[in-house]
Amino acid sequence: MEIWRVNARRRSLLREATPKSWEKFGGRGLVARIMRDETPPTCDPLGPRNKLIFAPGLLVGHMLSSCDRISVGGKSPLTGGIKESNAGGRTGLHLTHLGIKALIIEDRPEDDELQIMVMSTDGISFEPAADVLGKGVYAAAEILISRYGKNTAIALIGPGGERKLSSAGIQNIDKDRSPSRIAARGGLGAVMASKGLKAIVIDKSGGEKPDIVDPAAFRSARKRYTEALMSHPQTRVYNDYGTAAMTMMASGFGALPTRNFSTGEFEGAERISGEMMRDMLLERAGDAQTSHACMAGCTIKCSNVFADDQGAGIVSPLEYETIGLLGSNLGIDSLDAIAGMNWIVNDLGLDSIEIGAALGVAAEAGVWEFGDEHRAMELLEEIRQGTPLGLVLGHGAAVTGRVLGVSKVPVVKGQAMSAYEPRAIKGTGVTYATSPQGADHTAGLTIRAKVDHLDPTIQTDISRSAQINMAGYDSLGVCSFGSFGFAVAPDAVRDLLNARYGWDSGDDILQKLGRTALTLEREFNSLAGFTSADDRIPEWMTIEPLAPHNAVFDVSDEELDSIFDWIS
Amino acid sequence: MEIWRVNARRRSLLREATPKSWEKFGGRGLVARIMRDETPPTCDPLGPRNKLIFAPGLLVGHMLSSCDRISVGGKSPLTGGIKESNAGGRTGLHLTHLGIKALIIEDRPEDDELQIMVMSTDGISFEPAADVLGKGVYAAAEILISRYGKNTAIALIGPGGERKLSSAGIQNIDKDRSPSRIAARGGLGAVMASKGLKAIVIDKSGGEKPDIVDPAAFRSARKRYTEALMSHPQTRVYNDYGTAAMTMMASGFGALPTRNFSTGEFEGAERISGEMMRDMLLERAGDAQTSHACMAGCTIKCSNVFADDQGAGIVSPLEYETIGLLGSNLGIDSLDAIAGMNWIVNDLGLDSIEIGAALGVAAEAGVWEFGDEHRAMELLEEIRQGTPLGLVLGHGAAVTGRVLGVSKVPVVKGQAMSAYEPRAIKGTGVTYATSPQGADHTAGLTIRAKVDHLDPTIQTDISRSAQINMAGYDSLGVCSFGSFGFAVAPDAVRDLLNARYGWDSGDDILQKLGRTALTLEREFNSLAGFTSADDRIPEWMTIEPLAPHNAVFDVSDEELDSIFDWIS
Repeated sequence: MEIWRVNARRRSLLREATPKSWEKFGGRGLVARIMRDETPPTCDPLGPRNKLIFAPGLLVGHMLSSCDRISVGGKSPLTGGIKESNAGGRTGLHLTHLGIKALIIEDRPEDDELQIMVMSTDGISFEPAADVLGKGVYAAAEILISRYGKNTAIALIGPGGERKLSSAGIQNIDKDRSPSRIAARGGLGAVMASKGLKAIVIDKSGGEKPDIVDPAAFRSARKRYTEALMSHPQTRVYNDYGTAAMTMMASGFGALPTRNFSTGEFEGAERISGEMMRDMLLERAGDAQTSHACMAGCTIKCSNVFADDQGAGIVSPLEYETIGLLGSNLGIDSLDAIAGMNWIVNDLGLDSIEIGAALGVAAEAGVWEFGDEHRAMELLEEIRQGTPLGLVLGHGAAVTGRVLGVSKVPVVKGQAMSAYEPRAIKGTGVTYATSPQGADHTAGLTIRAKVDHLDPTIQTDISRSAQINMAGYDSLGVCSFGSFGFAVAPDAVRDLLNARYGWDSGDDILQKLGRTALTLEREFNSLAGFTSADDRIPEWMTIEPLAPHNAVFDVSDEELDSIFDWIS
Repeated sequence: MEIWRVNARRRSLLREATPKSWEKFGGRGLVARIMRDETPPTCDPLGPRNKLIFAPGLLVGHMLSSCDRISVGGKSPLTGGIKESNAGGRTGLHLTHLGIKALIIEDRPEDDELQIMVMSTDGISFEPAADVLGKGVYAAAEILISRYGKNTAIALIGPGGERKLSSAGIQNIDKDRSPSRIAARGGLGAVMASKGLKAIVIDKSGGEKPDIVDPAAFRSARKRYTEALMSHPQTRVYNDYGTAAMTMMASGFGALPTRNFSTGEFEGAERISGEMMRDMLLERAGDAQTSHACMAGCTIKCSNVFADDQGAGIVSPLEYETIGLLGSNLGIDSLDAIAGMNWIVNDLGLDSIEIGAALGVAAEAGVWEFGDEHRAMELLEEIRQGTPLGLVLGHGAAVTGRVLGVSKVPVVKGQAMSAYEPRAIKGTGVTYATSPQGADHTAGLTIRAKVDHLDPTIQTDISRSAQINMAGYDSLGVCSFGSFGFAVAPDAVRDLLNARYGWDSGDDILQKLGRTALTLEREFNSLAGFTSADDRIPEWMTIEPLAPHNAVFDVSDEELDSIFDWIS
């Protein structure tokens, strides 16, 4: 596998053999390794010294169910720390078929012109982007697909990325060519714009699947993993309800963020539940699908296609985090309204979590009223137009709170919390507080642990273990839901890696990968200026009790500071 | 002397004897001591755990020339670190005559109502502020003076503070009752609003000058100091030209910030010089004054009253920093235009340095064109109206840069640089980078040092010594220009303190005070999460050369990190 190093100023490519010291890294871990090795941690995230990295996980390339995710990384303009954000879709798979272990985009063009970079077995070429500039992600992707062919992979930014908004992500087309698989968090879309790129098109014609050292062993491990995944009860739940199954679970714990995280109970919870959505989609039919896969080979198919009451598709997928942040967090209890907002946010190429949190803060400030879905849509259109208020919202919850004078802002390290209240699910609060990524449920969700989520004294171990595992899966390219399969068949991780690469990894390879990634990320952040003061839940959540449990976030600073206990 | 501790939630007062451990502290040093002793460094600057402190300097209370300044402090909403901002006017003098060593305002009201706090020998009372809310500083001060009498001191916030803008300061009325003496930097006006205060009125009737242990020795030292000050050539310069004398000096060094710090040369420098201003004011007469004192007893009288061509007063004083930031930095070469903008900024209760820098960044982003003074005035009115763009600008240069997607932002620790280009006066760049206060020329200006200001290898010692001395003077309540007198008669500091308090300070008392204040400030910031990564000039200034010397800021990180070499 090769490293493709693109100089964005000269628009040139250098193809290098993978350095020995990077061989055992992939995905999130490889992002962390490269950032530590090559990027000054104090660099301006939108300046010439930051890098934008695309690194497929270690298991990517073989259409293993839920294992073809692409990690995108760099220094985050949202958090000021290291950022890895991963997505499904085709990008990871296609990069591996070009033999690419990591694509590293360096430096910055002299001018502000955005172009399209086309990658193929011949290398790279740059083409003008004039006809897609300013266009939403959906329209731009359609043009690019018609120009470059249906079999390409495309990673692109929307108008939000073009404006270098801190909530801008990078959208990837899925197996059905919908550009809805976003590496959403931390503003990497703004970094892509700073590198002069509107889109990256990957044409894998003539490329090949990565070599497998021991194909028989790989097939055997794959079989065990797939069977474990297929037989896991959670796979059934996600197939039926998608991630929206979480609405009632979070609500049951009093952890559904409601009206800018002011309560954990939402009177409209059932109306925005997975059960309600399933009933609606089954009834509506037409484009509606209760189950849909983002990556070829996925057996879970947790996605859906949300259609309107005429059966016309609105958005795919409608996810729980979006429902929580654009729904209950805004006092909005209509799935149709949420789906409409979600389409706009996607089309702008923005992170729906960050935007939902920003709108919640804006409502807290009195800019609009919770529940007024019409006005919420208008505010999203302000982001598209780039009005001053739109720009503020587009930079996320922390900037919105700062500008509008709101102290109750649900962020850690400048990044908005996901749809799990840290005062009600305190282990996830520990993850929010301490993850090098900023507040992020995918860095270590703890809601499924069979413990008292309100007890502050027992959360650190749970969060630590979740963070290590997730950093491991993110290094493999495995989706959170693929992890259900590996949890039942843990040997399969070891066996797949050893068969694929000829390694002799032990049983703890997942944890090794996870710890290594976290260690490198912590080092980077420390050199970037982060301290334990950044590993905290906002002060107001430690003071103001949350209904219905009247809980504050009270995991002690000592507990928080002990989380990465293997790092001296 | 007493500590007056106000609880802003209960609107109650506790009068305490000064703790032994605080006795030797005053002004900036006392702010630092109190913040370290009582305030959690990670607190929300606008939350209940931050404190707003008014601490007169150690020499305040005796109408020593240029020695009655008030230090205001707390945790800064602009920098996120400790903040001390000092001002002339009456506030310091009046507090000492009530026997107050420090006024500490704690906690935060339940509601957002702003009130007026009246202080007298009877204690405190709170009164409704309805008739002054939303009013500019000038109109509000006039109402308050007519209500509370001409002999009161008043510290108040403007509409900017009411909106909790991060560039909001606290205005103090001067000896002639103009509310133009602003504790400008770091957003303390927003902190005052968070404590529910529009104004603090200090009625010193029945109060007394602070005791002097050895009046004869005090008189003698005072005489030596005053004579030294009067005979200093710089006193003459400031008397004639005010701080505007610096325009041509900075220009001569290629250090005049021009068009968002893009060059150090401004073709209109002479038109905004002190010499030009003096000629204009002498010709205009009427209200115009080339020399005016902000504090009773000042022999320097560096201020001025800027009048229009009919002789009608526009603003007093018009200072060099304002000329640099609202003038050359915005490509504006008309003193009349700058004075008009200055009046609005003052009336809003904002820091003209921060606002000038924010407007420069906005011009860089294409929001308006450099030099268009009419549009600049409109943008200032947007701040008054609280439009989204106005709020963004009012939060200062860093927020403006973030929202508008500009990387070339002249800030350190989130605070805008003053009107000395750090690439041309590198010692002052070292001060900007390393001062616990954020970029601030008053923390240690080096332009008068007789050295090569472009040589990166010799600046650290110069900045260190300037920072120590200034932190000392800020602890005494001495104005920067009073320091010219003490520089000639250094014994006078020691003798005045020993006579006033009965201490046995040695020759190095000024430096001791300075080092102690800086040490405490560094400790606070470190616990608040600051690291050496925060002690840096922005990356772009280390890469992009500045005309006319084509210099970058290239003092090494090692030099910067060695600045506080007495702190282990």
